[in-house]
Formats: sequence, C-alpha cells, structure tokens
Amino acid sequence: MDKESRPTLSRRSMLAGAAAAGVLAPAVAASGVAAFSAAAGAESASAAAGALRQITLYAEQLKDSNLIGYALEPGKPTIPGPLLEIYEGDTIEIELVNTTNQRLSIHPHGVNYETTSDGSPLNDSFNNPGETKVYTWRTQTAYQRDGVYMPGSAGYWHYHDHALGTDHGTGGLARGLYGGLIVRKKGDLLPDRQYTVVFNEQSINNLVAPNTPMLEANKGERVEFVCVGHGTLPHTFHLHAHRWADNRTGHLTGPDDTTQVIDNRNLDPGSSFGFQVIAGEAVGAGAWMYHCHVQSHSDAGMSGIFLVRNPDGSLPDGAQAAIDRFHGMPMGGMDMKAMNMSPVPTGVHDGIAPLAPGNPSAKKSKNSPPAAGHGHK
Amino acid sequence: MDKESRPTLSRRSMLAGAAAAGVLAPAVAASGVAAFSAAAGAESASAAAGALRQITLYAEQLKDSNLIGYALEPGKPTIPGPLLEIYEGDTIEIELVNTTNQRLSIHPHGVNYETTSDGSPLNDSFNNPGETKVYTWRTQTAYQRDGVYMPGSAGYWHYHDHALGTDHGTGGLARGLYGGLIVRKKGDLLPDRQYTVVFNEQSINNLVAPNTPMLEANKGERVEFVCVGHGTLPHTFHLHAHRWADNRTGHLTGPDDTTQVIDNRNLDPGSSFGFQVIAGEAVGAGAWMYHCHVQSHSDAGMSGIFLVRNPDGSLPDGAQAAIDRFHGMPMGGMDMKAMNMSPVPTGVHDGIAPLAPGNPSAKKSKNSPPAAGHGHK
Amino acid sequence: MDKESRPTLSRRSMLAGAAAAGVLAPAVAASGVAAFSAAAGAESASAAAGALRQITLYAEQLKDSNLIGYALEPGKPTIPGPLLEIYEGDTIEIELVNTTNQRLSIHPHGVNYETTSDGSPLNDSFNNPGETKVYTWRTQTAYQRDGVYMPGSAGYWHYHDHALGTDHGTGGLARGLYGGLIVRKKGDLLPDRQYTVVFNEQSINNLVAPNTPMLEANKGERVEFVCVGHGTLPHTFHLHAHRWADNRTGHLTGPDDTTQVIDNRNLDPGSSFGFQVIAGEAVGAGAWMYHCHVQSHSDAGMSGIFLVRNPDGSLPDGAQAAIDRFHGMPMGGMDMKAMNMSPVPTGVHDGIAPLAPGNPSAKKSKNSPPAAGHGHK
Repeated sequence: MDKESRPTLSRRSMLAGAAAAGVLAPAVAASGVAAFSAAAGAESASAAAGALRQITLYAEQLKDSNLIGYALEPGKPTIPGPLLEIYEGDTIEIELVNTTNQRLSIHPHGVNYETTSDGSPLNDSFNNPGETKVYTWRTQTAYQRDGVYMPGSAGYWHYHDHALGTDHGTGGLARGLYGGLIVRKKGDLLPDRQYTVVFNEQSINNLVAPNTPMLEANKGERVEFVCVGHGTLPHTFHLHAHRWADNRTGHLTGPDDTTQVIDNRNLDPGSSFGFQVIAGEAVGAGAWMYHCHVQSHSDAGMSGIFLVRNPDGSLPDGAQAAIDRFHGMPMGGMDMKAMNMSPVPTGVHDGIAPLAPGNPSAKKSKNSPPAAGHGHK
Repeated sequence: MDKESRPTLSRRSMLAGAAAAGVLAPAVAASGVAAFSAAAGAESASAAAGALRQITLYAEQLKDSNLIGYALEPGKPTIPGPLLEIYEGDTIEIELVNTTNQRLSIHPHGVNYETTSDGSPLNDSFNNPGETKVYTWRTQTAYQRDGVYMPGSAGYWHYHDHALGTDHGTGGLARGLYGGLIVRKKGDLLPDRQYTVVFNEQSINNLVAPNTPMLEANKGERVEFVCVGHGTLPHTFHLHAHRWADNRTGHLTGPDDTTQVIDNRNLDPGSSFGFQVIAGEAVGAGAWMYHCHVQSHSDAGMSGIFLVRNPDGSLPDGAQAAIDRFHGMPMGGMDMKAMNMSPVPTGVHDGIAPLAPGNPSAKKSKNSPPAAGHGHK
Repeated sequence: MDKESRPTLSRRSMLAGAAAAGVLAPAVAASGVAAFSAAAGAESASAAAGALRQITLYAEQLKDSNLIGYALEPGKPTIPGPLLEIYEGDTIEIELVNTTNQRLSIHPHGVNYETTSDGSPLNDSFNNPGETKVYTWRTQTAYQRDGVYMPGSAGYWHYHDHALGTDHGTGGLARGLYGGLIVRKKGDLLPDRQYTVVFNEQSINNLVAPNTPMLEANKGERVEFVCVGHGTLPHTFHLHAHRWADNRTGHLTGPDDTTQVIDNRNLDPGSSFGFQVIAGEAVGAGAWMYHCHVQSHSDAGMSGIFLVRNPDGSLPDGAQAAIDRFHGMPMGGMDMKAMNMSPVPTGVHDGIAPLAPGNPSAKKSKNSPPAAGHGHK
C-alpha cells in the first residue's frame, strides 16, 4: 500500500482491511482496486457477518483558530472530517478522543446504533472534555418483513457532533465537526476521486470564496461528490456542466428509468446525497463552478471551482485565467454574526492541515496527478 | 368493535365501515385487522365503486386557548385533527360544523374535489361563523390516458383550513386547523401504530419541547409516521436510528430498487410524506429523538421523543432518565411574534383534550400497551 | 404552418425543423402533431446525429420598466423568456444579442456546453453591452459507462442570466432574465398546452397577485407545467385539484410504480421540474388556484388561477365570480426592498408585450379557444 502523508482517509484504504491498526492509515492506495476487491470478497451477504472496522477519531481544535475538526491522527484535524466508507453489513467502532475543553460527540445518519452510541445528550451519549468513548455503528442490507422490503443502510450519509454548544450540537456544527459517510451496496461502482462538500450556513466546508475547496480531476475520471447540508439555512447545490439522477446512486438503471435527472438539488440542514460524474464528459476540461444557487448565498461566497484538467493532468486553456478571476472576484461580505457562526479564519488555514482532508483524490492518476497550488489547501 | 373513549380516529375504525353512523366512532378496533380486511374486501377496483365514508367534523376552539382544532365529537378538538384514512376509490363526505366566530374551511391535498369543496375563498367555499357545510373528496386509482399512467390518489396527504385570517388560511394554520390524510392502495401494508407529525412554524403540532408529543411504540411494532409541513419556514424532519425510502410507501420494491434511503427530509409548507419503520429494529428500545434538523429550530423546541418500549411494553433501561433529561433541557425561547404565530399555551393543554388525537396507537398491544404519563396528552 | 403574431415559441414550432430560418418562428403550429412527428422521425438515436436548432435571442429592456427579458424578436421581450424545447441528441445554437447597457449572458441547466458557452464571468463567457455572442448547448441520451447508465439530458430544465449585477447573475434574475427549457426523450407524450411558472423572490414570473398569469385550458386538455425557482427564498409550488408523480415525467410507469404522487413540491432557487395534468379531470372545470404554499408568500401575492374552461371553451359556472374575487382580494404588501428585487410595474405591462410569452397554448383548440381578457396579458 502506497502510503502518503496526506491527512485523509480514502475509500480504498478504508476498505483495505486496516482494522487491525486501530487507526486507519491516512493513505491513498495505489493498488486500490485490488485491495478493495479483496476486502469485498471477504464479506458475506449477511449483515452480521460483515467486516468490523475499528478507527480512532480525534476531535481537536485547529491551530490558531476556534474551529474544531475530526482527525484520524492527532494534530491533523480537518473540516470536513475524514470521509468514512463501508459496505452494507459492516460495523464501525469509532474510538472518539475529545482533546477539547468542550462536551462533544459523534452522531451518524443512515446506520444502526444503540442509544449509547446516539451521540446525543438526551441519551447521555457524548464525550466530556478530555474523555475517550467508543461509538458503534452497524449496517444492514435491505430485508423482507411482512412481505415488503425494509430499506438497508446503503447511501451517501454523514456524521456530525450532536452535543457541543446545544443539545443538538449547533456549536459543534458551526465550528466544523462534521464529515461524510458512504455505505455501499456490493457491486456499487467505485469512483476515481471523491469530494465531500458541506453547505454549512453561508460557507462551503466552513470556507468562503475564494478560499472554498478547489475540487480537481482529470477529464474522463469518475468523480464522486458527497453533499451534506448543515446549519440553519436552506441551500441548493448546483454543479455546472454535469448532472445526475435523483436517487441513491446518481445513475439510471436503464434507458427507461423515469427518475428525474438534475443538476441542482436542495441541500438543507441534515440532508445529504451523492453522485458520480465523468469529469468533463461531453463538455471538456475547464474550470467549472459548483455553488449554492440561492443567489444571496453564492454572492456571499458559497461558490467554488470543480477543476477538470486535461486527461494528462495539465491545465486546459483558460483554466488558469478562470482561477485567477475567481480569486479576484468581489464577494459580498458574509455577516457571520447574523448567521450565528464562528468567523472562518481562512487565511490562517493555509499553514495548518489541509482543510478538506476527506477530499483529495482516492486514486492518484499515473499521469501528472492533479496538484494543489491554488491556496485552499 | 372494541370502542374506547379515546378522542381519535384510528385507521382501522375508519375502514371498518362506520359510514352509516355519520360520525366515525373515535374508537380503536381490537379486532382491527379483521375489520379492515372485511372493509377492503367490500371495495371494488373501480374508483366509482369505492366506499362512501360520511363523517362530521367540528371546528372548535380549544378551552382556555386561542387554538382551534378539528374534532370528531363536539368538545374534543385536537391538534392535529383526526387522521383520516381511506382506500383509492373511496369517497369521503365531510360535514364540517363551524362552531367558531371566524370564517374557516377544510381543504385537502391529493384527492379530487369540485370547486364547491375547494375550501378556498376564491371559490366561495368556506363556512361562515356557525355555518355547517359538506365537503366531498373523491379518490381514484392510477389510470391510463394517451398511453401513459396518470397518477392515482394513493399517498400520505393532509388537510387544512384555507380561509381563516387570510384567503390562504394562514390564521387557521397558525391556530391548529390541520390534520393528516392517508389514501392507500389495496394491498398496502397496515401499521400497528400511526403518528401525525406537523412542523408548523417553530412548533411540532403547535407544541414546543419539552411539551412536544411523545410518540410511543413497543419494539418490533410497525409504526407509521405521517409528516406534514405548514407555515412560513423551511424544515427538515429527522428521526434517529430509523430510516425509510424516499417514495410513496417508504419501503423498497426489492434489493435492486435504487430509491434513495433517507432519515432526514425537507418538510416545507404544504408538503407531506409518510413511511413505516419497525420500532427499535436492530437498534434496540430506547428514547429516540425526532426533530427538525434546522439547528435554530431544534434548539428552539422542535424536538420530541419516539419512545420505543420493550416488546412487553415496559420501559427500557435509561429511557426514563432520558425523558427526565428532555423535560429539564434548556430550550432557546421561541419568538412567537417573529413567527407571526399564536403563542401555544402548552401548560394549559394538559387539562383539556388530548393534543395529538390522531396520534395514539391504532392497535393496542396485548401486553402492557404504551401509556401516556409524560404531559403532552 | 399557421403563423400567428404571438411572441412565443411553441413546442411544436420548435421541433418543426425551422432551424434553417436561424430564428425560430414565434408561431403556433395548427398541424402541430404532424409537424412534430416529421421532425421526430428525422432524428437518429445518436446524440451526435441529432438536429441542429439555431435561434437568435434578444436580451432587451421592457418598455417603461427596468425589467429585462429574452425575446425571439426585437421589441418583444417577455418574462419568462421563450420556452425552448428539443429532443435528446439535438443541439441548439443561440445567438444572443445584448441590446442593454449591462453585462449579461445565458446559462442553461441540464445540457452540455463548453466553458465558452458557460455564461459565467468565471469563464469570461458573457455579452458586454451591445455585444452579440453564440452559445451552444448539446444534449445526449443516457449512455452506458463502466457498466452503469449515466443520465441523459431529458428533463424539465431552464436557462437564465449568470452575469448581470453579480458574477452569479443575481441582478439579471431579479429583472426577469430566465426561461424554461424542455429536453424530451423520443416517445414522450406531448401536451396540448404549456405554461412556464417561475417563483422568483416573492413573485410569479415577476408578477404579484392579482396580476399573476392566468393559465388557461379547456377541460380534458393535457396541460404541461414547467416550474422553476429563482432568487433567494425557498418556495413550494401547489396546484389545487390536480397532482403528479415526483419524477422526470410526472406520470407513473404503471400501477406498481412506487414514485410518490404529489401536489406540492419544493421549488427552491435553481431547481426545476415539470409535469402534465388533464385539466379538470375528475374535478370539473373551474378557477383552480396555483400558489406558493409558504403562507407569507401566498398572502403577499404568490398566487394565480389555473382557469379550466368547459370543453367548448366557455366559462364554467362560478368561474367569472372567482376571477372577480381574485382581482378584489386584499394582498399583503410585498416588500421589494427586503427581497432585494426590482419593483414590478405590473400596471405598465398591459400595454406592452404579453408577460408570459412562453405560456400561451401550444395548440389552439378548435372550439372556442381560451381567450385572455383578465388583465395579465
């Protein structure tokens, strides 16, 4: 396994069977597909027989900031936290280490947990300052009951604090305690790259333009978006020049599938969805916008670039100029007080850990992999 | 039919053929399933040949309160009003008695009605103070037209005032004139219990925490939620530790159904959806939260408990402590004036009629049925 | 082809093969179905082999108003702009003529375009004052890739300015630069009439009640709604006495389709959907309301009439009285400043071009076609 010093959790590393390590290596698996298949092959169809994943997460304040992120390694908190990914039937045991002086927790969507892993003060399920606690999430496939199919756990979900500031974790969410969670069905198609995009108040991943994450891919790569909404405001996620089906996978089941195809979707607090696109397919490489389509929000900085490079990883004509324009664009000031949100010291972040750690590529391209170099990491 | 003095309309009583009574008995059918099957068997597949249900509803002010509810019996208004339930093809004739001194009406979603039953001032369809009027709702199965299937009436719908205060019933909605409406397809699976949850401004069923409805079930029971949004604000409904498919039934059609599975969904004004869960399935009995996931709303009191008891009806470990915590939790004050909403005198309700009359169990468990005892009834 | 002097683009004229004309004739095809079939027959299943449509659009200020609309002919801007309609596989080349003194553009949803046709300042894709530029939109059918079906372009979409006022076109949207776009699959059922309904801030098509568009049809006609959301506010679109399936077409695929059937749906900024209803089916002719179900919005004027005439085109009993009531209803004042929206000089519009040019009937009934005569055209 080709380990790199990237403070992220890739899909393939998650599924590569690193459970024994206690902490999943923040690595990108060069031989990702093979490792993945091996892991998949070891799973049975029974939920009870699924794999057990054990990880440690650290809730930690970002340096020179009042933000708090989840981290796979001490000293490397990120916002959003690591993108966690499992198969239906798997179980994750999360040892959460609270390194802050605030009560906080982790609460998941889409999976099974007992009241002791609820992450809510209601159920006395949280970490006091300095405390370490284990939260267990289980998953299951769809099952028949009374003649109908009850849903399984597969989906693009998320996790977040449910205890900091208020009994609903409003303070923890405002400060960055959230992340993406994917539960796959066997046979689900795996992407080349993955990005978590969280619309949280009038920010994206607690960043505002032009410091929002630049999501990169090479033309022709399969890119997976995990979109999550948080906070107090309604949002709509729009991606330029790409679209998806409004269902669990984002794909159609065939030419007669009547699922609505969309490129703009509500992303309101607590909701999430995901999809895969072929980067630049039929539209070309370039700097494509993704943004909240609520006009006052996009104008206030809820906008970013999905940078589709040429297949060889080089920048297409015009892309650098677009990036430069993006950095020079006037943004309406965001009234953080009105949003009851902590100010995001974006300038400070550059010296710390990458801000979107769950977001780098899951598989590095052999040819000129996308590089950062535009200020948001 | 085992009648009890519960001021509610159960699914099974609704379908048990009480039409002749004029007013459906506010009863819970102990032999519910059998009665239901008999009713179902009497219906034909043709919409025209469906059953005729005749009920009387009373729009009546709650005692010591400015709230108004719909009632099946004089003196017993409830918020939400009775949960009405029929099969595709059935017709309901509602004799609405306006016992108030305000113009008001009843307007349904999802069913067929002529302009005279529109419930809107636009069509001169409302009850003047003291007036009694009949509203007729018809339903139909999906039908082919021009080679495509036009939708039938089946769905989780709702009804509400459309005339009090403004021509859109804004005053009636604020004061509690709303309820759930289910139109089933033949063969739809019936639940053991049903609850109507209405997100109305920053309240749930015009109540704020800790006085929001405690929804109860025994572990393993099939519980049906009917969720409705009203007022002026966007909301998202979240249920802890349970989930459903985002379609008409909440179930999947099979293992390959790509419908998105969710546990959080937009519940914006005028929208409704429903689903069934197996209480505590794979997660255990306990006090599970349901709440609006808009952080400012949950913090202001849009939160409640889905209390899953042990299979024998006893309280699971920790549940009473959770309930006690819930009652002691600080809630951010709700600014009723800002919401243009009548204040909800929750304390006063205890002495009056049950506040969530459509919400008690549809079928009482043989073993230690869930009891109230936590202030909201 | 029966040309008429209506400043609109009908579905059938769009598909009748007028590409050679450069500008699609703003006509209503009397022999619409035949012309349509011919066009359809000329298309291949391959996206590359689809038809090329070439039109010119004029962005032009409305007379005596600060509003700006798109027009198919100089001097005839409308809000919304013309309803554009093509088949999957077709290409549209839009020559956009900017007759204003503001930077503006056209940006589509749902179709393929290169960065040069993005319509965004980010990609330097806009028209300076007085400038003419060509934007190219391509479409495609669903296609298999890596064993899954990637979505095609079919859907109820829309287009809008992305450059006036802000880099997201907030000023252009506020002033009326938007319209509907339909991409059909072959075999999709064609309607008798089509209406575009845009919820833009607290207006419908930049109009407030009682000056909102009256949408007309004869009982039994198949009417298509294209609904679009814009601005900064969340909305829910509700239509009385009619309903649709929440998918791409609004139809069900058969009696076992579990798609949710709805009559109220979120219509938030940047989102769109469409559906077809049989006017007055099972409910009768009459003046049926369509409105935003956010109570403060409907009360402020986001409400209109779907006027279903008798099959012979005559007014049903009570309809004129309802229309008269609608025009006399008190509407809560709309605070345009709070919405950051230009005031809509509705009174002035009557003397200019029809305000909803994409909205007249696509096919005129042989018997007493619906006539205007109620002030909004």
